[in-house]
Amino acid sequence: MADQSVEAPDGHVSHGVRTVRWEASSDGPVVVLLDQRRLPVEEVELVCTDVPALVEAIRTLAVRGAPVLGIVGAYGVALAAARGYDVTEAANLLAQARPTAVNLGYGVRRAAGAYDAALAAGGGAEQAAGVALAEARALHREDAEASSRMAAHGLALLEELLPGGGFRVLTHCNTGALVSGGAGTALAVAVWAHHKGQLRRLWVDETRPLLQGARLTAYEAARAGMAYTLLTDNAAGSLFAAGEVDAVLIGADRIAADGSVANKVGSYPLAVLAKYHHVPFIVVAPSTTVDLATPDGAAIEIEQRPAHEVTMVPHPGASAGGRGAAASAPLAPVGTQAYNPAFDVTPPDLVTAIVTEEGAVAPVTAAGLAELVGRSQPDRGVPSG
Amino acid sequence: MADQSVEAPDGHVSHGVRTVRWEASSDGPVVVLLDQRRLPVEEVELVCTDVPALVEAIRTLAVRGAPVLGIVGAYGVALAAARGYDVTEAANLLAQARPTAVNLGYGVRRAAGAYDAALAAGGGAEQAAGVALAEARALHREDAEASSRMAAHGLALLEELLPGGGFRVLTHCNTGALVSGGAGTALAVAVWAHHKGQLRRLWVDETRPLLQGARLTAYEAARAGMAYTLLTDNAAGSLFAAGEVDAVLIGADRIAADGSVANKVGSYPLAVLAKYHHVPFIVVAPSTTVDLATPDGAAIEIEQRPAHEVTMVPHPGASAGGRGAAASAPLAPVGTQAYNPAFDVTPPDLVTAIVTEEGAVAPVTAAGLAELVGRSQPDRGVPSG
Repeated sequence: MADQSVEAPDGHVSHGVRTVRWEASSDGPVVVLLDQRRLPVEEVELVCTDVPALVEAIRTLAVRGAPVLGIVGAYGVALAAARGYDVTEAANLLAQARPTAVNLGYGVRRAAGAYDAALAAGGGAEQAAGVALAEARALHREDAEASSRMAAHGLALLEELLPGGGFRVLTHCNTGALVSGGAGTALAVAVWAHHKGQLRRLWVDETRPLLQGARLTAYEAARAGMAYTLLTDNAAGSLFAAGEVDAVLIGADRIAADGSVANKVGSYPLAVLAKYHHVPFIVVAPSTTVDLATPDGAAIEIEQRPAHEVTMVPHPGASAGGRGAAASAPLAPVGTQAYNPAFDVTPPDLVTAIVTEEGAVAPVTAAGLAELVGRSQPDRGVPSG
Repeated sequence: MADQSVEAPDGHVSHGVRTVRWEASSDGPVVVLLDQRRLPVEEVELVCTDVPALVEAIRTLAVRGAPVLGIVGAYGVALAAARGYDVTEAANLLAQARPTAVNLGYGVRRAAGAYDAALAAGGGAEQAAGVALAEARALHREDAEASSRMAAHGLALLEELLPGGGFRVLTHCNTGALVSGGAGTALAVAVWAHHKGQLRRLWVDETRPLLQGARLTAYEAARAGMAYTLLTDNAAGSLFAAGEVDAVLIGADRIAADGSVANKVGSYPLAVLAKYHHVPFIVVAPSTTVDLATPDGAAIEIEQRPAHEVTMVPHPGASAGGRGAAASAPLAPVGTQAYNPAFDVTPPDLVTAIVTEEGAVAPVTAAGLAELVGRSQPDRGVPSG
């Protein structure tokens, strides 16, 4: 890293963004989230004292993004354990809060598994709660480290694919410090390129309907001092046609065993555009995002979200929640039906590379992914069932 | 037409939408526009007494859409003539209000040409003003007739390409009665299919940044009783991938001599998606949209619009005007730069057919277009300069 001033003590670049943290208050522990629905207008923290509050925060996208959902899930289990709630029930509630996000279930299982193992080993509930918290903290730390490693691998790949430097990178949704224990996934690569003086332009898709690009990626890019330009998702095609995009960098919410990538809706059209224009389309995600139990893209469950996200005026600070819908004005005639999938699926033949903390898989093949997952987490082989 | 109840006396389907009309008030003639910025929340008419008011209405998108801009341009010339203003100056002001819209200039030239010819023939200014108005009215009537013919040709093409019927049509922006003296262009085809019981679903792209799909096409579809579903522009890819789109129907703001189509930004990505999924991509526009003086896509001037359309919360009723920007809340950090082209260009090899009132050109070739333009308007051949 060239710029030490923005490097956190644990070695990752976060520009001071504190997305999630555990805090021991006098009334018992809490999980504190930066409320992403209020950005960029105001920085407000959401203090969650129980699992239903966390589930609500996850569902309404106060916190969102694949890696950080795993961390929040793990802290959620630790929170239920520390406060004496039913840990199994809490784990189930958390894991179901967003069905497409594989990391959420992974984080929940890690903390719940550690808790159960501690209980089974004869420790009391209090000691098991401590073990669950330690596991959540370990996941948080590992994720921060994984961010740095993804950024390094991603930047190396960009330098290899585009030896001229001066990258003009297009990104979609938000994949930075707000989604991670560290600097993020796809955006972390762009941030590292920026700190090495190699980023010429960050093109930020606004990312309808919830505008995570306009609200969150632009917020992070501005904090990091990057040269960025916002565009409607519709305008990306014009940039490709004008030869203004050197690479697309996106994250992933779930990667199937065949390399199919579920990510924020709008990723697939970008992949088709990138293919048509011979521009590298690079997916950056922790290896925990790879789900070998999901054979292919068709097996990925796609969450359908409410129509009001499309039919009502988006309000920063309320666009994703019920309050927002109530307070908002209609954009479309009353009664308009909307098709509003949260994610889409990009098949592996449109993906140039999948970059993880363990390195890049390119070309994207089932064998390459399985090898990578086996290397990173020997306990996560293909399930027998 | 199957459904006489929605057919206007001159034979076109408009669902009672009165987009533009000439009215002789006691204070002199006025041009009355349905203020499209206020839709779908309220139906408000904008009474324009002079050319600067019309230019402002065009610039702020109170009235927009290729064919109707020609009609408004012609009425604008007639208005200046009737009220004794400098007709040449008025014509120049009107023609420059939106540089990409070829129909605007065409309508202006027709009315101004008729005015000049009447003056040159020795008629007084008052008689010439009457001639200009008659020319504007003729253009208005011709456009309504052209709508019906485009709808008939477009529907015949759909029936030929998709013999099974039950069309699921995706459309972008707004191309209905609101853009036309009649039922419109691309949307007119869908409306005719609906009235013949052949439209299974109209997929409506919301069309960021100004949301003409959500605000205007959904409004027209609801009035016409069509089965329609709104989606973010990002979600179109998922529909293609799921095999839910049988054809794409869009309009055009300018068609170059080689068949390159300038249309609302977001059209080009749809064309690439359609090509990738082997789905017909059909452009429906009056032959006046074809500009033989523009050789190819690279020669089409693309209007860049203000950043606030992207960076601020869209407000129905104010999204396109200066007032709106002032009253609106930020979606992105203050100071965010935006790339906001109004249009993009689709090359002819991605266009299955161009449907005009004279019939369809398929495949799209320069020779086919030139032949069609020569047939429809013998005076509009390739200019020598």
